[in-house]
Amino acid sequence: MQSIDLNCDMGEAFGNYPMPNDDILMDHITSANIACGYHAGDPEVMQHTVAMAIKKGVAIGAHPGLPDLQGFGRREMKITANEAYQMTLYQIGALYAFVKAAGGKLHHVKPHGALYNMAAKDAALAQAIVQAVHDFDASLILYALAGSRMIEAAKKSGLKTASEVFADRTYQDDGSLTPRSQINAMITDEQQSVAQVLLMVKQQQVISVNNNHIQLKAETLCLHGDGVHAVEFARMINQKLKSEGITVKAPAL
Amino acid sequence: MQSIDLNCDMGEAFGNYPMPNDDILMDHITSANIACGYHAGDPEVMQHTVAMAIKKGVAIGAHPGLPDLQGFGRREMKITANEAYQMTLYQIGALYAFVKAAGGKLHHVKPHGALYNMAAKDAALAQAIVQAVHDFDASLILYALAGSRMIEAAKKSGLKTASEVFADRTYQDDGSLTPRSQINAMITDEQQSVAQVLLMVKQQQVISVNNNHIQLKAETLCLHGDGVHAVEFARMINQKLKSEGITVKAPAL
Amino acid sequence: MQSIDLNCDMGEAFGNYPMPNDDILMDHITSANIACGYHAGDPEVMQHTVAMAIKKGVAIGAHPGLPDLQGFGRREMKITANEAYQMTLYQIGALYAFVKAAGGKLHHVKPHGALYNMAAKDAALAQAIVQAVHDFDASLILYALAGSRMIEAAKKSGLKTASEVFADRTYQDDGSLTPRSQINAMITDEQQSVAQVLLMVKQQQVISVNNNHIQLKAETLCLHGDGVHAVEFARMINQKLKSEGITVKAPAL
Amino acid sequence: MQSIDLNCDMGEAFGNYPMPNDDILMDHITSANIACGYHAGDPEVMQHTVAMAIKKGVAIGAHPGLPDLQGFGRREMKITANEAYQMTLYQIGALYAFVKAAGGKLHHVKPHGALYNMAAKDAALAQAIVQAVHDFDASLILYALAGSRMIEAAKKSGLKTASEVFADRTYQDDGSLTPRSQINAMITDEQQSVAQVLLMVKQQQVISVNNNHIQLKAETLCLHGDGVHAVEFARMINQKLKSEGITVKAPAL
Repeated sequence: MQSIDLNCDMGEAFGNYPMPNDDILMDHITSANIACGYHAGDPEVMQHTVAMAIKKGVAIGAHPGLPDLQGFGRREMKITANEAYQMTLYQIGALYAFVKAAGGKLHHVKPHGALYNMAAKDAALAQAIVQAVHDFDASLILYALAGSRMIEAAKKSGLKTASEVFADRTYQDDGSLTPRSQINAMITDEQQSVAQVLLMVKQQQVISVNNNHIQLKAETLCLHGDGVHAVEFARMINQKLKSEGITVKAPAL
Repeated sequence: MQSIDLNCDMGEAFGNYPMPNDDILMDHITSANIACGYHAGDPEVMQHTVAMAIKKGVAIGAHPGLPDLQGFGRREMKITANEAYQMTLYQIGALYAFVKAAGGKLHHVKPHGALYNMAAKDAALAQAIVQAVHDFDASLILYALAGSRMIEAAKKSGLKTASEVFADRTYQDDGSLTPRSQINAMITDEQQSVAQVLLMVKQQQVISVNNNHIQLKAETLCLHGDGVHAVEFARMINQKLKSEGITVKAPAL
Repeated sequence: MQSIDLNCDMGEAFGNYPMPNDDILMDHITSANIACGYHAGDPEVMQHTVAMAIKKGVAIGAHPGLPDLQGFGRREMKITANEAYQMTLYQIGALYAFVKAAGGKLHHVKPHGALYNMAAKDAALAQAIVQAVHDFDASLILYALAGSRMIEAAKKSGLKTASEVFADRTYQDDGSLTPRSQINAMITDEQQSVAQVLLMVKQQQVISVNNNHIQLKAETLCLHGDGVHAVEFARMINQKLKSEGITVKAPAL
Repeated sequence: MQSIDLNCDMGEAFGNYPMPNDDILMDHITSANIACGYHAGDPEVMQHTVAMAIKKGVAIGAHPGLPDLQGFGRREMKITANEAYQMTLYQIGALYAFVKAAGGKLHHVKPHGALYNMAAKDAALAQAIVQAVHDFDASLILYALAGSRMIEAAKKSGLKTASEVFADRTYQDDGSLTPRSQINAMITDEQQSVAQVLLMVKQQQVISVNNNHIQLKAETLCLHGDGVHAVEFARMINQKLKSEGITVKAPAL
């Protein structure tokens, strides 16, 4: 039977600044990537979000980012592989503490924002992040862009992976995402998004911007947590997938 | 046979700012309390300091502090018990990740600076910190001021403790430290420091500022890591204790 | 003719986290206290908020806070008078740069949160803040709690002041605010708030929690910028005051 | 008569971490670029450093950097031109406040580290920084790499400039610095450094790594403030220049 994981970045509130959708979204996703305090999140938010995920039976992942709160971890920084290793390890540990204290289980790691994007293309950063996950707990699953250097590095090291796909982004012929700088990068039509998701999940394919059918591994679908339609879309796509006979669940550890 | 642990706050470098004594001090101490990034330390420093402690056979402790890098965690902040719990848990986890990745073992937790001092007197903060340690790993040892609320709270919760004493601070009749604001708070004469340490370790006593003999539990001695004489004093007191037949070692897990 | 200033803390967004009411509130207030990056705000938010205030003719104030982004500057920190001086000066300068670059004029300074509350009661902190304002520009106006140490210190130093009052807080017989820890600290009934404001503005009085009429200097009224009713209340109280023949305007420089 | 300015990055201490050479260096330099809290420095350090510069008659510059304390502002970040403008303006204002409060005069702006290097090559960042300086005070002098995009942008905007040269870096045929990644990037021989400085100051030339004589504008020489030989080298080069009949002074405002 076909299956897919629905993951969402969670716990990206900070201090006085809420992320009001988080609690409701937990009802519609199967994996929560929880921010660890570098690009967003703080110890109080982490504790709350972990508790909520455990309560709702959502798989818990660490979501390490660059140390750039103002830039929300979205600004590329020229870091060394060692720095990538160290900041990933630090943040995994910090989140792990909340998971352990709450009696839960850490399930996966998904790098955030610019760290995710840089490591998707840069083999040394990819290897550093994989090494950090592996050194902490070799049974954790790495969530990373389908076809990326991170997936490659993880496979080489023996780490389990979940190849991530997007509902609202278009793809190039080589399977990479169309850069956001290009006009056709985003899919704004909901029906088109749903069609793309179904094709990805059912046939492990996507139709590129040049109208070619491309092979693509689709193991986890990234849902956005912010924006007014986030909850609505999560609920809809969850139901749609189930109505198509697809199992919605986190990858097995 | 009598024994004492020699602990020192370590890994309090940050970014471009070194703590040059750290590596050498590792030869003379038995417990390293390693900063976790809130009051000092960063992931690179943490990785290095953990590696050094493992190499030298020094027991590794997490040294969580207040989120105040500029104030080095020494400025009191009015935090809630929940905040104390959360920031302690976060920092223990972050350090644990480096210890685990390096194949070491986390041994103890010693709060830093204002967090240590506030929790020494405030039962709710003390209980929150103890709970964080306990929830993370109930086999860890809490290092805290002899006779403090933290020692009380840890004992109540079943957590192992190491009562900390100071070589360069004077004591009041009730066993508390003379506040730094008072003129006779510090012991600057080295011979007097050594005499106080020997009395504390051998007879579990200290002579108060009023010249009274006070009972005092002395399980771990705090050595300072900064200042020009820090290394010299650590080496000397280590040798002196051994020459008096006292075993210098970290408390057993 | 009677007059009152309506001030509101503005520019307290940060990075990815918006403060959606800010732009609309500018239509209903006469003074904007703009966060300077320590408790909230960042350079982008500061530039935008200053531009908006200039466009709407709202008087611009610096709103310096404690260096505690996670705590939103609301957690008391034990800082020295020197530290209060330095952090106030730093933040005034930072905001001034945006005001100057935009061709505007800096009008006042209002400390934020815990810094405001600590300095209201602590003469040394009050004096330090006043000195920082004075040393930067002796023509600036200090906004501070009516009857506070800050107002006293400012008057002694020759600094102009605006005594601040609150629509939604109750007062003690001595003119101080009822601490938030007490059950009757807040006024939640809008009609009661309006009545209190009118009494304060028209008669420079307030009815204390013990039902006594208390003298109170009311030169600027603090409006809250967050919460769903913030904009609505600001619009209403502005119109109400005007309909009662009261001039709503910022204090003259 | 020939003249040169000797500038040094100052006030790069932070919190508990000192920069012990700073006070002594002030005796040997003519321009101090004072860190503004983003890559180093804090309000206390800024106040102290400004006071010291005024006392010693050293020209005061703002030294804005990237918001990366852990990386000391040396890690490139992909920022927009708007962000460069905003962070430069913020930091100039913050430093200006201390200069104004101390009765001094702000003289110049020199970007730090990765911000300096990125803007040397990127015309949009260069223009943004120049605009920030210009919008704050069009009479300030921009210190920037000789021949860089920043010098170009400043000249276009009418801002005064001081072209900066280095004693310990080698140059390419096109007048650019040899990248640090190359083996011959640094000059470690002191005599060679002195010779290069004298050639640059006296003949506005430098001998490239390919042994060609290159034209180079040399108006301010960058001295390093850290390292054991920093003070010694500053004293020596200052005396050497004077003994060669060269005036050592900051550029006129």
